[in-house]
Amino acid sequence: MKILIASTNRGKVREFRQILADGGVAEFTDLTEHAELPAVEETGSTFLANACLKAGQYAKLLEMWSLADDSGLAVDALEGKPGVFSARWAAMHKAGEGDADNNALLLRQLAGLPAERRTARFVCAVALADPRGRVVLTASDSVEGRILAEPRGHGGFGYDPLFLVEALGKTTGELPAEEKHRISHRGKALRRLAALMERTGLPLSDGFNSI
Amino acid sequence: MKILIASTNRGKVREFRQILADGGVAEFTDLTEHAELPAVEETGSTFLANACLKAGQYAKLLEMWSLADDSGLAVDALEGKPGVFSARWAAMHKAGEGDADNNALLLRQLAGLPAERRTARFVCAVALADPRGRVVLTASDSVEGRILAEPRGHGGFGYDPLFLVEALGKTTGELPAEEKHRISHRGKALRRLAALMERTGLPLSDGFNSI
Repeated sequence: MKILIASTNRGKVREFRQILADGGVAEFTDLTEHAELPAVEETGSTFLANACLKAGQYAKLLEMWSLADDSGLAVDALEGKPGVFSARWAAMHKAGEGDADNNALLLRQLAGLPAERRTARFVCAVALADPRGRVVLTASDSVEGRILAEPRGHGGFGYDPLFLVEALGKTTGELPAEEKHRISHRGKALRRLAALMERTGLPLSDGFNSI
Repeated sequence: MKILIASTNRGKVREFRQILADGGVAEFTDLTEHAELPAVEETGSTFLANACLKAGQYAKLLEMWSLADDSGLAVDALEGKPGVFSARWAAMHKAGEGDADNNALLLRQLAGLPAERRTARFVCAVALADPRGRVVLTASDSVEGRILAEPRGHGGFGYDPLFLVEALGKTTGELPAEEKHRISHRGKALRRLAALMERTGLPLSDGFNSI
């Protein structure tokens, strides 16, 4: 049975597929293959609320088990921002849009701050919804780091080139995909969700009617 | 191991205990036994977002597996309202507070509407969070009904005396507790959550560290 990865972000979709492939839980399709669908508005105030909204609404639209994440960067000096607005941070400030503009804006906002005040974490929440749009399993996790004063590395996406994982001495943009997934917020959250899927035997082929 | 039922609403707590007792999954405590804790603000725009907020925050405060629900009444003629505002409906309109005032306000808002336009449903979302505040399992369900022009029955709480379940010819306020739980939004959602708990073996005594 196929599960929908409810994301149009090619960087995320690639990570989902890489991380979940190890679990061997199912086949996947994703929203890049369903361009006909309307975008679901991410109106939640938490990562988990948005992950649940997306998983639930796309599941209902396609009548298909669906998996969605919401994730982003919480910077202590910005009181947890950009948070759920991470992907729209520059656009919200009329400072362009997309990864490069988001990174440039963040650097301007933290300009002059010493290293010890540039602490941050990547946070990820994931949700699995049944074909009727009911969220059943969720998982969340995070990874601690620090925002550099200039980008390093060309891997990953989003704020990866600015996010230093101190224990490794590298940004998540410098880590090979496999190593990034081992320590990343999304890798850890998705593995926890995969473990729950294995324990529950979900998704069930009968669409969860038996529970 | 004890699970916290993260609610101060005595009506809800009683229902949780009655419904989950059958599952035999665990012992329970609830927020009426923890008056020292601050109230968690229900800022979500969906039942599920609020259930997740409450379960997660109380779990973290007490370092304890926690179960929370958010539920309410969605009236078609009011475009799904009072929805997440069900418990605060009269207070939000400066029309008193509590069950009696909420019911009176709803009746005024629907005054003159014929029976066929008084359709509504009770919706319930429940969430289980681990002792670190991470939501793991969720379930949602609903029950269809119609809002009467005057209350019938003294059982249940909230909008129960106004909510006619047509198949039974009775309001949820007229049903004996056991019969109400069999068909109610909360009963169905909690039984689905209990089934997920049984399938996953959660809560684990080690606080979920093994996943």
